[in-house]
Amino acid sequence: MAPSLENNPAFNRIPPWVKAKLRPQAIEIIQRVYDWVETECIPAERVVQAQLQNNRWKTAPLIHELRKKAKAQGLFNIFLPNHFKESPGLTNLEYACCAEIMGRCYWAAQTMNCHAPETGNIELLAKYCNDAQKEKWLKPLMDGDMSSAYSMTEPDRASSDATTIACSMKRDGDELVINGRKLYGNSQMNDELGIYILMGCSDPENPNPWARHTMVIVPARSKGLTMKRNLTIMGYDHAPEGHGEYVYENVRVPAANIILGEGRAFEIAQGRLGPGRIHHCMRLIGQTERAFELALIRCIDERKKPRGKLIGEFDSNIERVAYMRMRLDSMRQIVMNAADTMDIMGNKAGRYAIAQSKVLIPKMAADIIDECMQIWGGQGLTQYTALPEMWTYARFVRLADGPDSSHAHQVGRDQMKTAKGFETRHKQYQQRYHELCKQWNVEEDIF
Amino acid sequence: MAPSLENNPAFNRIPPWVKAKLRPQAIEIIQRVYDWVETECIPAERVVQAQLQNNRWKTAPLIHELRKKAKAQGLFNIFLPNHFKESPGLTNLEYACCAEIMGRCYWAAQTMNCHAPETGNIELLAKYCNDAQKEKWLKPLMDGDMSSAYSMTEPDRASSDATTIACSMKRDGDELVINGRKLYGNSQMNDELGIYILMGCSDPENPNPWARHTMVIVPARSKGLTMKRNLTIMGYDHAPEGHGEYVYENVRVPAANIILGEGRAFEIAQGRLGPGRIHHCMRLIGQTERAFELALIRCIDERKKPRGKLIGEFDSNIERVAYMRMRLDSMRQIVMNAADTMDIMGNKAGRYAIAQSKVLIPKMAADIIDECMQIWGGQGLTQYTALPEMWTYARFVRLADGPDSSHAHQVGRDQMKTAKGFETRHKQYQQRYHELCKQWNVEEDIF
Amino acid sequence: MAPSLENNPAFNRIPPWVKAKLRPQAIEIIQRVYDWVETECIPAERVVQAQLQNNRWKTAPLIHELRKKAKAQGLFNIFLPNHFKESPGLTNLEYACCAEIMGRCYWAAQTMNCHAPETGNIELLAKYCNDAQKEKWLKPLMDGDMSSAYSMTEPDRASSDATTIACSMKRDGDELVINGRKLYGNSQMNDELGIYILMGCSDPENPNPWARHTMVIVPARSKGLTMKRNLTIMGYDHAPEGHGEYVYENVRVPAANIILGEGRAFEIAQGRLGPGRIHHCMRLIGQTERAFELALIRCIDERKKPRGKLIGEFDSNIERVAYMRMRLDSMRQIVMNAADTMDIMGNKAGRYAIAQSKVLIPKMAADIIDECMQIWGGQGLTQYTALPEMWTYARFVRLADGPDSSHAHQVGRDQMKTAKGFETRHKQYQQRYHELCKQWNVEEDIF
Amino acid sequence: MAPSLENNPAFNRIPPWVKAKLRPQAIEIIQRVYDWVETECIPAERVVQAQLQNNRWKTAPLIHELRKKAKAQGLFNIFLPNHFKESPGLTNLEYACCAEIMGRCYWAAQTMNCHAPETGNIELLAKYCNDAQKEKWLKPLMDGDMSSAYSMTEPDRASSDATTIACSMKRDGDELVINGRKLYGNSQMNDELGIYILMGCSDPENPNPWARHTMVIVPARSKGLTMKRNLTIMGYDHAPEGHGEYVYENVRVPAANIILGEGRAFEIAQGRLGPGRIHHCMRLIGQTERAFELALIRCIDERKKPRGKLIGEFDSNIERVAYMRMRLDSMRQIVMNAADTMDIMGNKAGRYAIAQSKVLIPKMAADIIDECMQIWGGQGLTQYTALPEMWTYARFVRLADGPDSSHAHQVGRDQMKTAKGFETRHKQYQQRYHELCKQWNVEEDIF
Repeated sequence: MAPSLENNPAFNRIPPWVKAKLRPQAIEIIQRVYDWVETECIPAERVVQAQLQNNRWKTAPLIHELRKKAKAQGLFNIFLPNHFKESPGLTNLEYACCAEIMGRCYWAAQTMNCHAPETGNIELLAKYCNDAQKEKWLKPLMDGDMSSAYSMTEPDRASSDATTIACSMKRDGDELVINGRKLYGNSQMNDELGIYILMGCSDPENPNPWARHTMVIVPARSKGLTMKRNLTIMGYDHAPEGHGEYVYENVRVPAANIILGEGRAFEIAQGRLGPGRIHHCMRLIGQTERAFELALIRCIDERKKPRGKLIGEFDSNIERVAYMRMRLDSMRQIVMNAADTMDIMGNKAGRYAIAQSKVLIPKMAADIIDECMQIWGGQGLTQYTALPEMWTYARFVRLADGPDSSHAHQVGRDQMKTAKGFETRHKQYQQRYHELCKQWNVEEDIF
Repeated sequence: MAPSLENNPAFNRIPPWVKAKLRPQAIEIIQRVYDWVETECIPAERVVQAQLQNNRWKTAPLIHELRKKAKAQGLFNIFLPNHFKESPGLTNLEYACCAEIMGRCYWAAQTMNCHAPETGNIELLAKYCNDAQKEKWLKPLMDGDMSSAYSMTEPDRASSDATTIACSMKRDGDELVINGRKLYGNSQMNDELGIYILMGCSDPENPNPWARHTMVIVPARSKGLTMKRNLTIMGYDHAPEGHGEYVYENVRVPAANIILGEGRAFEIAQGRLGPGRIHHCMRLIGQTERAFELALIRCIDERKKPRGKLIGEFDSNIERVAYMRMRLDSMRQIVMNAADTMDIMGNKAGRYAIAQSKVLIPKMAADIIDECMQIWGGQGLTQYTALPEMWTYARFVRLADGPDSSHAHQVGRDQMKTAKGFETRHKQYQQRYHELCKQWNVEEDIF
Repeated sequence: MAPSLENNPAFNRIPPWVKAKLRPQAIEIIQRVYDWVETECIPAERVVQAQLQNNRWKTAPLIHELRKKAKAQGLFNIFLPNHFKESPGLTNLEYACCAEIMGRCYWAAQTMNCHAPETGNIELLAKYCNDAQKEKWLKPLMDGDMSSAYSMTEPDRASSDATTIACSMKRDGDELVINGRKLYGNSQMNDELGIYILMGCSDPENPNPWARHTMVIVPARSKGLTMKRNLTIMGYDHAPEGHGEYVYENVRVPAANIILGEGRAFEIAQGRLGPGRIHHCMRLIGQTERAFELALIRCIDERKKPRGKLIGEFDSNIERVAYMRMRLDSMRQIVMNAADTMDIMGNKAGRYAIAQSKVLIPKMAADIIDECMQIWGGQGLTQYTALPEMWTYARFVRLADGPDSSHAHQVGRDQMKTAKGFETRHKQYQQRYHELCKQWNVEEDIF
Repeated sequence: MAPSLENNPAFNRIPPWVKAKLRPQAIEIIQRVYDWVETECIPAERVVQAQLQNNRWKTAPLIHELRKKAKAQGLFNIFLPNHFKESPGLTNLEYACCAEIMGRCYWAAQTMNCHAPETGNIELLAKYCNDAQKEKWLKPLMDGDMSSAYSMTEPDRASSDATTIACSMKRDGDELVINGRKLYGNSQMNDELGIYILMGCSDPENPNPWARHTMVIVPARSKGLTMKRNLTIMGYDHAPEGHGEYVYENVRVPAANIILGEGRAFEIAQGRLGPGRIHHCMRLIGQTERAFELALIRCIDERKKPRGKLIGEFDSNIERVAYMRMRLDSMRQIVMNAADTMDIMGNKAGRYAIAQSKVLIPKMAADIIDECMQIWGGQGLTQYTALPEMWTYARFVRLADGPDSSHAHQVGRDQMKTAKGFETRHKQYQQRYHELCKQWNVEEDIF
């Protein structure tokens, strides 16, 4: 039903340099993802809404069915980059093209098991778990048989600086005893939730602040673990996944659940967050494209003719549409480059490109979607379109995985370190200027 | 319980020129409104939430009680400017100071019967109704015995250009027969809703597009009138008032319900919207002040110390706080000037000042609140604070009573009309330049 | 020749509250200033340019003549507020209306001896000098017989933090011996320059950093004082006043030239800068109004019809014009309020309002003028209009008298001090919430 | 003298995907361009300034010498893309890397004959001239023996809509007789200027507005052609190239000078402007990188410590630096993609990518440079650095080759044409939703 790749807009917007890097098998998957999202997901959005109305904390039956179908068709877990042995084989760049398309529908990624926090968690488990752990947790996650949560943020700490994380983990024999409070991490109310990947402080006195923390897998129904409330985001409950606020009171977990080793949480955290951040950004672009399409559709709505002109006939809106288009395409360049950088140089070397995406894209996305809502006029903020949910998701990503400012500070501090080199270079210019003044018999201008 | 006026921040922020215009009785009322909001409203916010949880479409019992108390204390209807005989006696400027304080709590204005759309409707009825109509509808509204809705926007029209309003009103004997669809206007689900003030098209063939429309009072439970859905705003249902989407099918209303006369809707509309727009802006300022306070509180939260510093110790946040403060105070100057202009020159002459407020304030408010949410980090978008509701309200006002662009276009077109005068003046400069060149013996520079 | 006050745009834009405060004699002066600027100054702009072409570092003869005329007509020194005995009698607010008009022409203020740095210097001398000093320096400055410079900024210090000022002043008998480098302060090349008001460090070891500095009057042709270069601003030499870069080498000045006393520079500095900052802002508004008029004139230029429409017929430009108008009027509110606050509460209490103007106005002015240049298209950046000079002046003021960020930081730090009070208040809300929960039998929601 | 490519910042900032496309010979040229700019150009900036002081309208001797050297070293004309037979062989993308480096010094491109308007003109002549014309004009231009101007803009037309160009060209035998006024195009005062490529209207009555105009080569010293004034840009005379304002009075030119044929100007114009626009953007990025380096150097200047901290130790500046860095790198992605798109798909298909660069880059560049000036404090706007010239150039490019809005309108109109397709698609979603509702037994939600 969906238009074929050659004349489909999602494919045409891919920059030439990216297209040139896509292997035939990737192009085929992109086309299949596009058909899937256009045919199975977008038209079903209101069906899913209706199903959730009845049973707020259960995955909608339609989504369950789609997950089965997608798995059967090999469209499952395609986010996992090709350097993992469990990977279906796409590069980060190739997956980026898929992720953008998935972003067009809020839950499309979920039908392909490519949604947050699953992707970050699966990549983490694939990278750092031993075989026994993988068998126990990675397999069911990749099979889509359970879901997982990532639990780091705390209400009583500035979690953007993860060294302040305080949730206490004390070793007691071959168990860890956990006490503390956590924010975010999916809601316990959804009974498909199987595990939390929890970051806590196991060695608070360690002189090295990067060696104090540990990551451990906590079964979702552990004794002593209670969910205090579901966190709403701009009023949305985000059911049936939700965002829990948790209290740990003497929760006991086998030490065998520790990932990589005690005190190695930062090693893991650094590896985890890169791709996850990029996935968010990729999907945001797809979502913003869809918002843009909705704005365009409004622009030619014959029922809306203030002062006798279509909305799209106003020069001011023509300019708005142009700037939205140009910004959107800039966003894509930024994210595609980050994905490509990860492919070529690895996640660690790509840290800056990832931060650049994480800081710039969600803000631009939210701004563009906001403008689309405004173009829609009186109906722009209502349930007439998915624009309000889209804005909320973009806004949310400005805080998820660290607020803008913490990433910007990291980038800024790194830049400051380069200043010395430029100063040295500047002095070399001055020295050469001195020579040139002599050579050309010009009076030196000293500042 | 609230601090006395001399050292209360809400009073201290009032610009000196405004303070100098406040009469002693007004100052007393401002103090009383302040005490009321600080003691009765803000601390009760979560109580009202809890009560609404149980009975979503009924006014919360606490609010009912506060309304009774406020009425008994003479804090009811104080928005109605002193040129109305029904007015408690404040000027627009004096009321502006009260409205800002009311804005600190989402529903505080309602406890004093100073909320939208009541204020606009009451002012409309007071201004344009005959005595019989006033007795029937104005009285119960001012007594707080029923609530009202304003119904103009349509799903199938560009309602920012009200001449396109299509809802059909046909005279049949001494009745009007109404057919059409309407958006916005409070929800029928709340049984306190008594009437709609409806704008429709009664004479579509009239060559004068400003004489085609009529305003009429429609009882809320009229036969043929059905509510299709409650409109959510960024997902919020805004219960128990809500925003309805309505279908009129052969709804019959007595012609006696027509306000001012057939074909005179625009005469009324123009008079109505000015003060209402300003009230929104005033309250937005109070709300933004409260958001700002919440951000400041976060800035000194001892639990939040990324990189070892309080959030408020970061220079970047010091600058942010400064800009928020300076913009907030600019907003107040703009709105206070609009209120004062209405007092001195009337609503019509104040049209530009009102538009200036309507366009600039909601955007600034939304931006500042957005920044406050960001300062709050991981909890910023959640139910930890009222910031998400605050942002949503500010965002909503950018569309309510006409989108930004329709007001801006009006202002812009008016400005363009002044161009000719400046051009003439410019030619006079050139003529005088010509003389001066001769006088000073300087060669004329011709462009 | 200029339109009478009732229908002149400069007067009509004054907010009603300001108009109500203008005394008849002030209104008369505003009218005269308007006539003066419109008739004598604006049309003469290119004449002055031509005269300066011939003699770059001499005040243009036309300006000399206008200064004589203005003085004869009592339009001299009108900036000096009425609390000085030397004042012609206007309040800061009344003068604000004049200053805006003066700002319409770059050098109009100079014809009335109301230009920077003269106004700040005259106010400083009037406030802090003894009678002998006044006779010697204040009188000729107010008579327009010489000009003065203010010299504080240093190339080797972060002068936005004036406590770092290093220029050495050593007492030697009844002389001060001065060594150091200074930036800014008018150019020595103009032989009308009579004195520098110099800030230096006379007591570097004083434990109180606010008591280390001294202000002294330095005759412009002092031995040992050399000007190294004229500083250009965005390439403009700003002749014939200019901006000098100076070296002091054992410059000797009588101790009698010290103002107020050794170590009291900060006392003086604080008093000086307020009004000067506001004057800049006032003039910037007038200048921006003129830029706006030029943009409007372009909007109806019959020769410019891209795609068959006048520039002013594009909806996008209609919106631009509207936002420029609304921002401009906001700027005026902010500055007028600052002037009024100084009148009512004094310069010190007005510090915040002054900072608010200083930070917000120049940026807005530069942005609006930039947009006006853009509306002018290909000719927008050229000498076709004075827009480039206007932009440069507005941009300059973002750094003159302290960069934006130093003022913003001051405001921000002051705001942070208020956080504690709001936190306390917040706790009181919580306490009352606790009571209300009991009263209404609602479960308390604890965060 | 310059650092080798591996550890040179200009090379390291090139995105991985671009690096992968650079051929070894291109990498070698990039390194040589870098050495050239760092060693021969940047340190010589003030020498050139001093030389121009003496002889304002002659190319500086130092630049003359560098041009000879660069030509000898094969660094001449490297901008001409490899699909021209006259090309030294770089692709647009490869040249983009060179152009960025050239942008670090205002006149570095000129030393390599890669400056505007030469590059656009050479490409035009190479593409559209016959052999005789090439021999006469292309050869000396590529040899660096004369310079050329492009003359299209008119003072009496909205030249952003080139169909309004009015300069009259009438055929008289085998001559064209030209009458009209032109703005821009280099100054006649520089005697190296050899020709104008002039666009005029030769067939005003042609019903096809795109066939009315002709391009012709006008010798610089033609009879009847006079330069009225040199246009300054923000006060800069841009000598010795300048920008002329011209009057054509019966200027006679051989018809053999017509390029491509009468009435074919638009065909030529379209082909010309793409690469020239991209060159501007590429150079702007290099220039902005240098501004950024200057800001960083200021950040660690030990003499500047307001409140005891280096400028770069303020969190606010750390954030500023981060955002500058991230925006700069976004700009590079956008331009590199445009260059690559031209390489792969041709100039015409690259039209959108070119417009995207042209609209977004100059604005970002100007904003970043403006921030760098602000970071420099009191010296930021003066001749202490080249920042003011840099800002002015970036600002200029927002108008050169068409103002932002004309490009944005073109993009916007093209986007509006895609609306219909999305509307159709939206209806297909609705149809499928209808089916899904039946399948899942869910009530259809009709809007």
